[in-house]
Amino acid sequence: MSATAPEHTTFESYNPPTRLLAGPGPSNVDPRVLEAMKKPLVSHLDPHFWDRLPILADMISAFYGRQDGVSMTLSMSGTSGMEAGLVNLVAPGETVIAASGGFFGNRIQEMVRRRGANLVALNVPFGRHVPNEEILAALEQHPEAVMVCVVHAETSTGVAHPVQELGEAMRALGSDALLYVDCVTAIGAMPIEADAWGIDYAYACSQKAIAAPPGLSPITLSTRAIERLGRDGMPVPYSMDIAELIKYWVDRPMTYHHTTPNLGYYALDEALCLGLQEGLQTRFDRHADAGAYIQAGFRERGFDLLADPSCQLAQLSAVCVPEGIDGKAIQGRLLNEFNIEVGGGLGPTAPPIWRVGMMGVNANRETADRVLAAFDQVLPNGAH
Amino acid sequence: MSATAPEHTTFESYNPPTRLLAGPGPSNVDPRVLEAMKKPLVSHLDPHFWDRLPILADMISAFYGRQDGVSMTLSMSGTSGMEAGLVNLVAPGETVIAASGGFFGNRIQEMVRRRGANLVALNVPFGRHVPNEEILAALEQHPEAVMVCVVHAETSTGVAHPVQELGEAMRALGSDALLYVDCVTAIGAMPIEADAWGIDYAYACSQKAIAAPPGLSPITLSTRAIERLGRDGMPVPYSMDIAELIKYWVDRPMTYHHTTPNLGYYALDEALCLGLQEGLQTRFDRHADAGAYIQAGFRERGFDLLADPSCQLAQLSAVCVPEGIDGKAIQGRLLNEFNIEVGGGLGPTAPPIWRVGMMGVNANRETADRVLAAFDQVLPNGAH
Repeated sequence: MSATAPEHTTFESYNPPTRLLAGPGPSNVDPRVLEAMKKPLVSHLDPHFWDRLPILADMISAFYGRQDGVSMTLSMSGTSGMEAGLVNLVAPGETVIAASGGFFGNRIQEMVRRRGANLVALNVPFGRHVPNEEILAALEQHPEAVMVCVVHAETSTGVAHPVQELGEAMRALGSDALLYVDCVTAIGAMPIEADAWGIDYAYACSQKAIAAPPGLSPITLSTRAIERLGRDGMPVPYSMDIAELIKYWVDRPMTYHHTTPNLGYYALDEALCLGLQEGLQTRFDRHADAGAYIQAGFRERGFDLLADPSCQLAQLSAVCVPEGIDGKAIQGRLLNEFNIEVGGGLGPTAPPIWRVGMMGVNANRETADRVLAAFDQVLPNGAH
Repeated sequence: MSATAPEHTTFESYNPPTRLLAGPGPSNVDPRVLEAMKKPLVSHLDPHFWDRLPILADMISAFYGRQDGVSMTLSMSGTSGMEAGLVNLVAPGETVIAASGGFFGNRIQEMVRRRGANLVALNVPFGRHVPNEEILAALEQHPEAVMVCVVHAETSTGVAHPVQELGEAMRALGSDALLYVDCVTAIGAMPIEADAWGIDYAYACSQKAIAAPPGLSPITLSTRAIERLGRDGMPVPYSMDIAELIKYWVDRPMTYHHTTPNLGYYALDEALCLGLQEGLQTRFDRHADAGAYIQAGFRERGFDLLADPSCQLAQLSAVCVPEGIDGKAIQGRLLNEFNIEVGGGLGPTAPPIWRVGMMGVNANRETADRVLAAFDQVLPNGAH
């Protein structure tokens, strides 16, 4: 047997550099969370681990403001969490209203199309959100719609969607449509009240304001969403089948669906513990303060922010690249000279922006100052 | 905002016990691999990480014996790797021949059904494999079949499938059907020669003989499999879309598909480095020796093995629970009194067995002796 590798034959260990991850995520992992990953690996079917799962689920519920329903984590990225909600709750041919003002809203629309559903796409330019009135009008026009999709915190633009108002209005209308919410950049950084706002399905990721490593997608379902799982004849990919996962997480006795990545589960568990010990409101306030602080810093230097001020997220700022400046080159200098990662625009239709995240352990003024100081070095005149 | 959790309100850190993972996987992680996970987290779009991806891909190729095609890892479990091969390479309505002699072969068949494909199911009792002649006969009967699925190392029974002979025979027939192989329990423990044997799609996992933590599914595709990706009108879930992943792994410039779980990638990378430094043949020999040793030990004690001796895997032994003995109770005592995990039968149709893995860092006689000694404590008379 050959077992020779084609081209790159060194096979020496990889040695990544130390970065301040001040982009749209992943953000730096809390060192206490990294410690948790050194704990002994037990298997996904170990009764000791099994006994911990309800606690992990409840902590995820706490971050989502869920008491009536089920929360768990998928062993996949947020991208899969996005898709899992669609393939479990929408049958091909059903109608879905999906609002987008950015890359991730667009991606939801693409996944709705791939599901073979009838997509009602509502779109606004990057930097705004689709007004709730337009969503409600679409719902009146399409009473057959089974789902309304919005992005609570659009990672590509720094825009917040008023989810609470939408959920309350949908309930007031007596709509049967499920409310599906992308909480990837929201969770752990700003309030989410799944029960009170009427969120039926939400997904997030581990690596932003939760401050765990990337790899997991915590999700939550309302009771009425759970009731729509496993409909007859509805094709669901097995590895994303939430009804099967509920057998593992909630129903007993012990069942097997897939091998869970338990070191990642330890990390998520510890990160959620730390968040609850800090207190979620304290954590939200910390993100609000850090975000307002760095945004003021950018504005003082003459930079514009992409998001309409009425819907600006704290934890993620999209800073407009001034005319005449090569945004990518600045990004490269911040990375190579200062070991600071900030994001650029995402996808071919994005305007020229830098995306600066203040999330998890990085949500503080000291980190903001470090990022602003690096910008001052590479752009001593600010936006001018 | 409430942010209170429903029931389990302690939110103290989780403290798992230290186990010897001598079941069907996960197996214990090499300590040097755990060290690698402490390296600084960089993002999935960091050029430094990006430059490492071809090396990681080549190491995966080395484990698969692939030079002509593409290898990568999915950021999901082996269960998703199983499904990804089907949803990317089979359109609804196409015919798939799937052979099964165990839980995972059955699962492939279930996923083929969910794909909406026309399943030709070939089944034998647990402990055997479907003879290649039967597979080839089915292929002659179903010349429209686009894929033949087999399990190289059936994790639920300890049975090896003669993949090399099957691949050679399919080539000799001039078959257009793709050869799809489950290598979950094979990779790193026994030879796989994807190019030479004509394997078109194979998937594995990180947590068995590779000795990395669970969470990733290394896959490999032949050139002709790659050519069948992205066919017009074929629906593929976005988060499992291999054509999109190839844009990230192979095509440049930098694209974004999902946030890769980079600490897991570091671990896989390090584990593959260590395997190649050990030498794959040396590693296979070590697994063969440890497996033969523990199997001799069980037989000396009067236990039968489930697998037909002609197709017994070394790295995984299914030991028959003697009549009158409560297999689950023994499993529980090994776990609780000795901190040793062995598996039980998987699924409702499994015969009463214990599944004992000698994989990765555990593939040695010392570990085998430790497992046998624990069995001697709880069953001093062996099978009698």
